[in-house]
Amino acid sequence: MAWSTSYDESTCGRLINLAQGVPGSPPPSSLIQRLGSLTQDTSTTQYGDLKGDVGLRKAFTKDLNKVYNTQIDWDNECLITSGANLAFATVVVGLAQQGDEIILPTPWYFNNEMQLTMLGIKTVPLRCQPPQFLPDPNECRRLINDKTKAIVLVSPNNPTGAIYTNQLLKEFAQIAKEFKIALILDETYREFLPNETKPHELFENSDWKEYLIQLFSFSKSYSIPGYRLGSICCGVNFQTQLLKVLDCFQICPNRIGQQAVEWAIEGIRDWRKEITIEILKRQELFKEIINQQCQQTNWKVCVGGGYFAYVQHPFKGISSMIVAERLAKQVGLIVLPGTFFNSKFENVQDDQYLRFSIANVSQETLKLVPDRLNKLCEMWDSLS
Amino acid sequence: MAWSTSYDESTCGRLINLAQGVPGSPPPSSLIQRLGSLTQDTSTTQYGDLKGDVGLRKAFTKDLNKVYNTQIDWDNECLITSGANLAFATVVVGLAQQGDEIILPTPWYFNNEMQLTMLGIKTVPLRCQPPQFLPDPNECRRLINDKTKAIVLVSPNNPTGAIYTNQLLKEFAQIAKEFKIALILDETYREFLPNETKPHELFENSDWKEYLIQLFSFSKSYSIPGYRLGSICCGVNFQTQLLKVLDCFQICPNRIGQQAVEWAIEGIRDWRKEITIEILKRQELFKEIINQQCQQTNWKVCVGGGYFAYVQHPFKGISSMIVAERLAKQVGLIVLPGTFFNSKFENVQDDQYLRFSIANVSQETLKLVPDRLNKLCEMWDSLS
Repeated sequence: MAWSTSYDESTCGRLINLAQGVPGSPPPSSLIQRLGSLTQDTSTTQYGDLKGDVGLRKAFTKDLNKVYNTQIDWDNECLITSGANLAFATVVVGLAQQGDEIILPTPWYFNNEMQLTMLGIKTVPLRCQPPQFLPDPNECRRLINDKTKAIVLVSPNNPTGAIYTNQLLKEFAQIAKEFKIALILDETYREFLPNETKPHELFENSDWKEYLIQLFSFSKSYSIPGYRLGSICCGVNFQTQLLKVLDCFQICPNRIGQQAVEWAIEGIRDWRKEITIEILKRQELFKEIINQQCQQTNWKVCVGGGYFAYVQHPFKGISSMIVAERLAKQVGLIVLPGTFFNSKFENVQDDQYLRFSIANVSQETLKLVPDRLNKLCEMWDSLS
Repeated sequence: MAWSTSYDESTCGRLINLAQGVPGSPPPSSLIQRLGSLTQDTSTTQYGDLKGDVGLRKAFTKDLNKVYNTQIDWDNECLITSGANLAFATVVVGLAQQGDEIILPTPWYFNNEMQLTMLGIKTVPLRCQPPQFLPDPNECRRLINDKTKAIVLVSPNNPTGAIYTNQLLKEFAQIAKEFKIALILDETYREFLPNETKPHELFENSDWKEYLIQLFSFSKSYSIPGYRLGSICCGVNFQTQLLKVLDCFQICPNRIGQQAVEWAIEGIRDWRKEITIEILKRQELFKEIINQQCQQTNWKVCVGGGYFAYVQHPFKGISSMIVAERLAKQVGLIVLPGTFFNSKFENVQDDQYLRFSIANVSQETLKLVPDRLNKLCEMWDSLS
């Protein structure tokens, strides 16, 4: 980021980057070894199944069925994609045409909005109110019309980190069912929920097949974004629609990544649990130190979950973009401004939030953050 | 293919599959070793550059510049994609909207037509006449209107194998320039041209940047379809448009494939030459034996190049679909019917062609083909 180049390290010490939503550790050596040996089997150089390799689909749905207490069919209800972004693209091309509408809570994952805009699909914002940033089902109902094809929810959320309860998700499921539209539920960060919580119960009622399209990414939980793997779970009717799109987009996902994950679902389960525990510790620590040490300067952690925390800055009437720029340039702390996640604010008071990614820095590094935030407050009046 | 299950091997011997356009050999062991060692560098598990890894873009454009005697800029004019199909999808989403038109010669690569239809873009067929199956520039001019965004050419062609001359491509380039539309030129099979021929001279006049969008796939030349890698070369103005689309679709192409190819461009050059020589021998052999041994039964190889040959069957008034089905069921020879590559024929006389993929079977196997074709002719009248 260009801002960081003008930061002087003698002010607060080395640059701290909390901007990126990337895994904090490489995969464990057992997975690295597995990838290595898979390259030596030349069948992995060949085209594979459009839906994803059979072995991975079987292993992954087995895992899903345990997590969600359900019976997802590995062949008719599960697709493996070249990353979760391509999964989202496949779903929206499969569901909607130019001029159709899709409801997206704000602040939103900017890539979702970009994709819809690019495809000529109208993004209808559903504004989530601070400090909890939860979408309101009644507000959502008011946004639905005969052009609406889907509601998109991301939980744990990117950018806010908000975790949607089972009850809230059920209310949205009810809306989707009632209006015969899809509920696209992106659960990229679901493995980072506390205490192996079941993310929700939607899969337990077999009517999920009528409305639910669940997305997942293997990039975060398995620390392999460079291998590009995601998934789509949905009923067979949706799957039939989506396969036509997927056939155009991906042919097949890359093979060795798939075969490695097939093994890793059980093979690195303990490692995945350790990572989750560590990320939860970072979330706890972050909330605690900001709320304690920045009480006087008025920085507040509104919500946090998965990789992210959403933080309210204390500079009334100042855009998050300016605050983020000053954090980077003056105190060497890189975070993303709320403006990145929402095209328009009704007034500047709403533009008071910043996304902190706490997943790829150590607890030691996180402990340096409160001082920097306080330091910016000290300097603020002297900055032009 | 379902047809093949009802074939009785005692009739003509084992099943011969000439349906698939897949590489006939795995990559050389040096490339396999390279892939293995790249997995051990954990940086390959991480996200990479949206445009593709810098090393690959530099190595690949260096190679392109030698092949085409030009100076493609590695950073502004070259993108690496997760396969050539995603490259095509990126280009059409970047260029056209619902209701726009794109001209596609027939017989076409069915995936191209599927993608356009899926995106609500109108596919305008430019009918190529047998036996040469070359697109006619004058005919093309008549199809252009103010909704036309691009012409798509594939050379060497899939499905026909036709190789377009430099002169012909120049005429299409002139049309694209004149009407300010794009010429999308898919050169997936260009490494299989005879005698290291320069595929065309379009890149030698710097005005190529105004109209040309060249696609390539690493799947065939490097025998690594399972790693999903393709490319897009175009001027910086097009690239700026396409990057927005690519950012939604791929985030980055898979990393170890990219780094392996960066090395393999020089590292397996000799192996690639050998493969090309072998494929050219198969093309030669195939034409020779069909035209000699099937003269009396009236099977004819119309054109051939790259992986494919387009063959005229002798059964007047019978759809290629029926002929392909009978070849599979009666004589154990699997090929694709012309109907797969063209949605509609004006009359059944035009539906007289089959695609033979000659690239992934040995010369010994190819030598078995004429007998089977002749055998079907013998049996024909007795078939219901």
